[in-house]
Amino acid sequence: MRIALAQLNCHIGNFEGNLQKMLAAVESAKSEGADLVCFPELAVCGYPPRDFLEFDDFIRKSYTSVERLLQASKGIGIIVGAPTHNPVVEGKDLFNSAYFLYDGKQIGVQHKTLLPTYDIFDEYRYFEPATEFQTVELKGKKIALSVCEDIWNVGNENPLYTICPLDEMMREKPDFIVNISASPFDYGQAARRIHVVRANVERYGIPMFYVNHVGAQTDIIFDGGSIVMSPNGRVFDEMAYFEESLKVYDLEEVMRGGQASEQPKDKINLIHDALVVGIRDYFQKLGFKQAILGLSGGIDSAVTAVLAARALGSENVRVLLMPSQFSSGHSVDDARRLAENLGIQYDIIAIKPMYEAFEAALQSHFEGLPFNVTEENIQARVRGTLLMAMSNKFGNILLNTTNKSEMAVGYGTLYGDMCGGISVLGDVYKTEVYELARYLNKDGEVIPENSIAKPPSAELRPGQKDSDSLPPYDILDQVLYQYIECRQGPRELIEMGFDEALVKRVLRMVNMNEFKREQAAPVLRVSSKGFGMGRRMPIVGKYLS
Amino acid sequence: MRIALAQLNCHIGNFEGNLQKMLAAVESAKSEGADLVCFPELAVCGYPPRDFLEFDDFIRKSYTSVERLLQASKGIGIIVGAPTHNPVVEGKDLFNSAYFLYDGKQIGVQHKTLLPTYDIFDEYRYFEPATEFQTVELKGKKIALSVCEDIWNVGNENPLYTICPLDEMMREKPDFIVNISASPFDYGQAARRIHVVRANVERYGIPMFYVNHVGAQTDIIFDGGSIVMSPNGRVFDEMAYFEESLKVYDLEEVMRGGQASEQPKDKINLIHDALVVGIRDYFQKLGFKQAILGLSGGIDSAVTAVLAARALGSENVRVLLMPSQFSSGHSVDDARRLAENLGIQYDIIAIKPMYEAFEAALQSHFEGLPFNVTEENIQARVRGTLLMAMSNKFGNILLNTTNKSEMAVGYGTLYGDMCGGISVLGDVYKTEVYELARYLNKDGEVIPENSIAKPPSAELRPGQKDSDSLPPYDILDQVLYQYIECRQGPRELIEMGFDEALVKRVLRMVNMNEFKREQAAPVLRVSSKGFGMGRRMPIVGKYLS
Repeated sequence: MRIALAQLNCHIGNFEGNLQKMLAAVESAKSEGADLVCFPELAVCGYPPRDFLEFDDFIRKSYTSVERLLQASKGIGIIVGAPTHNPVVEGKDLFNSAYFLYDGKQIGVQHKTLLPTYDIFDEYRYFEPATEFQTVELKGKKIALSVCEDIWNVGNENPLYTICPLDEMMREKPDFIVNISASPFDYGQAARRIHVVRANVERYGIPMFYVNHVGAQTDIIFDGGSIVMSPNGRVFDEMAYFEESLKVYDLEEVMRGGQASEQPKDKINLIHDALVVGIRDYFQKLGFKQAILGLSGGIDSAVTAVLAARALGSENVRVLLMPSQFSSGHSVDDARRLAENLGIQYDIIAIKPMYEAFEAALQSHFEGLPFNVTEENIQARVRGTLLMAMSNKFGNILLNTTNKSEMAVGYGTLYGDMCGGISVLGDVYKTEVYELARYLNKDGEVIPENSIAKPPSAELRPGQKDSDSLPPYDILDQVLYQYIECRQGPRELIEMGFDEALVKRVLRMVNMNEFKREQAAPVLRVSSKGFGMGRRMPIVGKYLS
Repeated sequence: MRIALAQLNCHIGNFEGNLQKMLAAVESAKSEGADLVCFPELAVCGYPPRDFLEFDDFIRKSYTSVERLLQASKGIGIIVGAPTHNPVVEGKDLFNSAYFLYDGKQIGVQHKTLLPTYDIFDEYRYFEPATEFQTVELKGKKIALSVCEDIWNVGNENPLYTICPLDEMMREKPDFIVNISASPFDYGQAARRIHVVRANVERYGIPMFYVNHVGAQTDIIFDGGSIVMSPNGRVFDEMAYFEESLKVYDLEEVMRGGQASEQPKDKINLIHDALVVGIRDYFQKLGFKQAILGLSGGIDSAVTAVLAARALGSENVRVLLMPSQFSSGHSVDDARRLAENLGIQYDIIAIKPMYEAFEAALQSHFEGLPFNVTEENIQARVRGTLLMAMSNKFGNILLNTTNKSEMAVGYGTLYGDMCGGISVLGDVYKTEVYELARYLNKDGEVIPENSIAKPPSAELRPGQKDSDSLPPYDILDQVLYQYIECRQGPRELIEMGFDEALVKRVLRMVNMNEFKREQAAPVLRVSSKGFGMGRRMPIVGKYLS
């Protein structure tokens, strides 16, 4: 038996586009002699469809796509994810289902049992869990059909669910497991995925064919990395990251488990590739081609510009250099050099005239009050307004360049440098931005060495440095990582050896700035806990602030 | 037996503040001879605590509060909501629980069974549902203890859950039901709440004591309206809306069901009161006193200013009038008159110099390109920057004045008139804003009649009117209501008789502007479907856009 995995880049709500991709994949699979082709979770509508699921019209369109795949299933089995109606009046109205279609007939539907409702996932918002479990049969082989999370209760010391759907299916002695997934990227996820697939394969002693989405849906990036695992627990194949791919596997070969092939998992390399795909798909799926951003001469905007050029092409990236009276001389030079290295269009607009116009208009109201964060913010907002004007006039999208450390502690101006359609580095700590910069320069200088080497500064007042108001980034980032990714509270952080006053100051800054993050651009998610839908904190919360 | 309901305004994460309120309520209840005092759901930590629940430290602090209430329970029963640990390794780590404390002892804990995971609710993100059900006993009376949603599967044609916890508890023949709730306001919720309480009382034939939160937590407003219902299905008492309150009821009297008292439920009156509380608590809970906003002479900013003055006091509201060359003469007059009517501080800053500075800086880049939305947006962003400068310099919070109709169709400038810490009218359709304006003027003119009567205009280009680019608001708002609140898709809307081209245009505008709403201020929620956490739509979604 030959089994094809179709790792596709779906687009939420683009039913016709997704269907055409799947129909093409069915034809390819047939031409390669496949008996079965497997598509990812909710592939007909894209993942995550969120509250579109509450519209009957959206569900009707999903059914129509399945109907058309059914017609295409002559001579081949198709496994595909789609939302389906729950016929029982009690409980949620939908199931998250895996269809098994063969030869023009719907042979079976297995609903998802374990509904991830944590981090970015909201599945119990929409779906009723399955209570019935049955294998399906193709050419004498029994298949245990599972949807994503259904395999994640195994190999886990603190399982999130009280039941295990595959345990139920094993009574029918299936020959192999198919898992259709929507498992988003973070830099540690591919390893966790293999761990879980292996825990299942070892528990049940049969191979698994695991197919994932690829491509980005706004903030959420899917890396693909679909897995075929032999019964001996070896990774028979791990499909490419960040690329659409269709591959056909021979079940007998997989059973023997001779071959073993895994993708390399270097953290910074993965983050780089994820961000490039994240930018590319945000533009493509919104129907835009061109980006604009502000280049300050600092490292964050430099890294963002390079990633944008790689994602969209140099010809589609345009930058503004917007020096003020507080900008150091080398800032413009560094920014210009970067633009020249990248071959991107740059313009220089000094912000002084606008800044002075604001100063004049506010003078009588601010009489006698000292220069403070107000004036710093005006500079940042003048820049934001200039960038948005270019964006509006030329129909490009402004990229936000704020990094995760800044976003965490609120070191940025709302409606100023926090402007942008998508945040490229909002899930990348400052110390990781440096690693990214070095990675981007590995084959020769793209980012001027000076942008990397100089002490970080917002340059919003004379001689300002980030270190004037923030702890050193190597310490700060460790505290932030423990607080944000690992949910360690003040007591745990102090027990780890971090200075008590520092811990309290940092946690307070993080919590007090929820109001800013609430209005931030969506953040390309590359860690296990990014800002946005995956992290939901109260704004008026008093805890630690 | 005398039962006290304590309808309190808790503050998320403010453990000491919440505890002090509860301890004071315990003393009051004792002094009024109560045998039992009931506090709302998760009262120790405030609702919704969101991802704070993922921190051990936060849960420890909840336990500490319960411990202190236990000590205060000498001679009185206390029912209080708190998160508790799930001792079983499988499943979520927490329960959403109702403690029953009496005379220094913990007599029982009933966990919540039905975990709302829709709209603004995310409870299955954190909690495991209960699987055990037991009544508790106080002075010979058996009490069926339930938490909020646990009563909501009754009286519902399409129940969301497959089990009904009170059905289980009825085996022990309880004498009455206590329900501790966190049931947020929308203008139809009080009536729905009474319907559901009645459905339970009629099903089980015993009275119910239902206690709710009051006060706002950022966007989510609790109206109180706690309910005591007699076994005959009459509302024995409905406690005040939008006020903290402690009332003691005699069980025998409630059993007899002679008395009947309900609060009036006029929609606009309720919305008015909710918005005033929403503004007041946002400031109070963040520790701010003063607001600023821009007055355009139009109706939205006028209504916002009046609500702010009522919430914070006239002395704490300050406005900017920021005319441009496109402002009509009467706009400044209307705005000034409103400020004078309210007795609030106003300043006039013409935006022309800043606008011209931007124009000059961009001139060479925009050479030969026509005036368009770019220049309109620059005006709005200059205003946003001026308002934020005042906010930064004087430590007040900018109120956003965008209404729901504009927010829906994206008729507003990101980083311009969409600036603000909290959106006051973002869940109030334009046609409802008119009703609110008339309501505010009911005892005499506060809002100048001209602001209400003139055709709506953004005044960003000569002679501009909203009706140039939008359908008439009375039609638009109907389509939006059906699409947003009622989740009716294009087919259903057309079947209702709305023009097909109009429906497609409006739905497309709504969907294409998710990117703007993603960066909007939190919106005070007054309808059953507000923008924000309760409505989660993809940005790169292709459906209907």
